[in-house]
Amino acid sequence: NSNLKLFSLNSNPILAQEIAKVIGVELGKCSVSRFSDGEIQINIEESIRGCDVYVIQSTSAPVNEHLMELLIMIDALKRASAKTINIVMPYYGYARQDRKARSREPITAKLVANLLETAGASRVITLDLHAPQIQGFFDIPIDHLMGVPILADYFKEKQLDDIVIVSPDHGGVTRARKMADRLKAPIAIIDKRRPKPNVAEVMNIIGNVQGKTTILVDDIIDTAGTITLAANALAEHGAKEVYACCTHPVLSGPAIERIQNSKIKELVVTNTIAIPEEKKTNKIVELSVAPLIGEAIIRVHEEQSISALFD
Amino acid sequence: NSNLKLFSLNSNPILAQEIAKVIGVELGKCSVSRFSDGEIQINIEESIRGCDVYVIQSTSAPVNEHLMELLIMIDALKRASAKTINIVMPYYGYARQDRKARSREPITAKLVANLLETAGASRVITLDLHAPQIQGFFDIPIDHLMGVPILADYFKEKQLDDIVIVSPDHGGVTRARKMADRLKAPIAIIDKRRPKPNVAEVMNIIGNVQGKTTILVDDIIDTAGTITLAANALAEHGAKEVYACCTHPVLSGPAIERIQNSKIKELVVTNTIAIPEEKKTNKIVELSVAPLIGEAIIRVHEEQSISALFD
Ligand SMILES: Nc1ncnc2c1ncn2[C@@H]1O[C@H](COP(=O)(O)O)[C@@H](O)[C@H]1O
Ligand SMILES: Nc1ncnc2c1ncn2[C@@H]1O[C@H](COP(=O)(O)O)[C@@H](O)[C@H]1O
Repeated sequence: NSNLKLFSLNSNPILAQEIAKVIGVELGKCSVSRFSDGEIQINIEESIRGCDVYVIQSTSAPVNEHLMELLIMIDALKRASAKTINIVMPYYGYARQDRKARSREPITAKLVANLLETAGASRVITLDLHAPQIQGFFDIPIDHLMGVPILADYFKEKQLDDIVIVSPDHGGVTRARKMADRLKAPIAIIDKRRPKPNVAEVMNIIGNVQGKTTILVDDIIDTAGTITLAANALAEHGAKEVYACCTHPVLSGPAIERIQNSKIKELVVTNTIAIPEEKKTNKIVELSVAPLIGEAIIRVHEEQSISALFD
Repeated sequence: NSNLKLFSLNSNPILAQEIAKVIGVELGKCSVSRFSDGEIQINIEESIRGCDVYVIQSTSAPVNEHLMELLIMIDALKRASAKTINIVMPYYGYARQDRKARSREPITAKLVANLLETAGASRVITLDLHAPQIQGFFDIPIDHLMGVPILADYFKEKQLDDIVIVSPDHGGVTRARKMADRLKAPIAIIDKRRPKPNVAEVMNIIGNVQGKTTILVDDIIDTAGTITLAANALAEHGAKEVYACCTHPVLSGPAIERIQNSKIKELVVTNTIAIPEEKKTNKIVELSVAPLIGEAIIRVHEEQSISALFD
C-alpha cells in the first residue's frame, strides 16, 4: 500500500481516522482552514506525486463549505501530480435534487457530479445514494456501497422476536425488502394518503404490525417528520415496539426534538454524517461504516472486485 | 430589450436593483432560499426560454454560499432553455489564489472559472480582477471593467489641491499610475522592506508627500493591515491629509477597527461588495458601479463594443 494516501477534510475526521486504522495507514498531513474573509485555504503537507489518493469528505451540512473544500482539495491534488484522485463521499449532499420535479428547477445532484469531474476526480466511492440513478450522472467509475447490511447486522445481534420491517413511504419498499431478507422477516408499508387537498393525511398501514417489534428503515432522516409520524402510527396500530434506522442521519431543524417526543425506542444510524455532540441523545445508536469503506478502498486499490462486499 | 432578463441572487440585491433601473427593466422573479439542512433551493418564477439572461452575483463572503448559489442558478437557467447565461460578478472571489506560490497549492481562481463554465455560463462581466491574467482562465468571453474611473471622478469633484496618488505596495503601481493620469497628479509608492527576518518592516516612501493631499489606491481592502500601515506612514512623512480608496471593500476581521483608528480621513469604495449595516462608519463613502455595469450590459446585449467604457 506504499502508493496509497488517505486524506481527511473537515466533515468526518473521526470516521477518517477509523478508516485509516482499518486500512493500516496514517492519514496524510494537510490543513484545511479559512483566510480572514472566509475563503478556503488548503495546505497539503507531504508529497503525493504519483500516488493513488483517497479523500474522505461527506457533503453534509454545511454542505456548500464541505463541497468547496472537496473541489479545492481535488484541484490541489491534481496540480501536485497525484496519479488518481478517489473521492470517498460517505454522504452525497444534494442527492434529493436529482430531477426536475417542477419547471425551471436545477438538477443539483448532476451539477455536483459535473463539478467533481471538472475539478479532477478519477473515481467516487459513496453509500446509499438517495436515488441509485445518480450513478449515471458520472462518467467516471462510481462504487455504490450499502448501509442496510450494517443496520441489519445490528438488529440481528439484538435477537429481537417477531419483527416486521417497515417502509415509512412508498419510495422505500425496495430498501425494506432488502433489510427484511437479511433478517428473515416480513415487511409492512406506511401508506400515507391525503383524501382531499387541505385535509390531514391518513396514515394507513399495509401489513400486520399488531403486537410486533417494528423496525422502520429509511435512507435519510432529515427533519424526522416522516419517520416520527410513521412511528406514532405504528404504535397506534398496536405495534409492541418501534425501532427506526437509516444510513444518513441528516437530523436538521426539529429532528432531535421530534425523535425524543416520538414513539421511537431507539434510532440506529451510521456515521456517514458526523452527529454534533449537542445533538446526541440516549435514543441514538451510531454504527461505523469504517470497516465497509476501508475494505472497499483496499479492494479498489488492489483492483479486486468489490461485489463481495454486498453478500 | 424584450429578450433581456436580469436576475439577482443574494450577494448584492441593492446593486442589482440599481442596475435594473439603469437598464430600464424589472428584476426577474426568483427565490433563492435554503432547505432545512442548508442545501440551496432555487425557484425561477418566470419563463426565460430563449432569453439572454444576466445574473448579478458577487462571490463575496460567505463566498462558498454565494458561489454555489450562482452555480445552481446557472444549472437551472440552462435546463430552462435560456439562450445565453451572462454572469455579472462585480467581485470575483478567490482571485488571490491565482497561482501556485508554494508547492501543492490549489489555483482556486482557475477552479472557479472551470466550475462556472461547466455549470453553463456563456460570458462573464467583472470588475478589477486581482490579476488581469485571470481573464485567461476562461474559454468564454470575459468583459473586464475598471473601478478606477469611478474612484477618480469622485476625487475630481472634491477639487482637492496638491494631490499625490500613492500605491500601498509594489504590485499596485500600475493602478496608481492610471488613477494619477485621470487626476493629472504625480505618484508615490510605499516601499515596504524587511531588513532582516524577524525584524520589523521599514516603511520607506518613494516620492514626495510632504504637505500633500495623499490618496492611497488599491484593488481590494481585506483586513486593512496594508492600507492602514501605509496611511500612518504617509502621515509620519508629513502628508497633509490621507484618503484611501479601493474597488472591492472586503473588510474582514479587524478591518473596520483598524480604519477607524488610522490616519485615514475618508475611505472611498465601490459597491461591488455590499457592506453590512453594522460595518458602515462615517469614514466610509460608497460609490455605485451600477451606471458602469448597466451600460456594459446594454452594450453587450446590443453587441456593441464596450471599449468606450474605458475612456
Ligand atoms: N435538502 C433538501 N431538503 C428537503 N427537500 C429537498 C432537499 N433537496 C431537494 N428536496 C426536495 O425533495 C424532493 C425529492 O425528494 P424525494 O421525493 O424523496 O426524492 C424534491 O421535490 C426536492 O425539491
Ligand atoms: N482570501 C485570502 N486572504 C488572504 N490571503 C489570500 C487569500 N487568498 C489567497 N491568499 C494569499 O495571498 C497571496 C496572493 O496575494 P497577492 O500577492 O496580493 O497576489 C497568496 O500567497 C495566497 O496564498
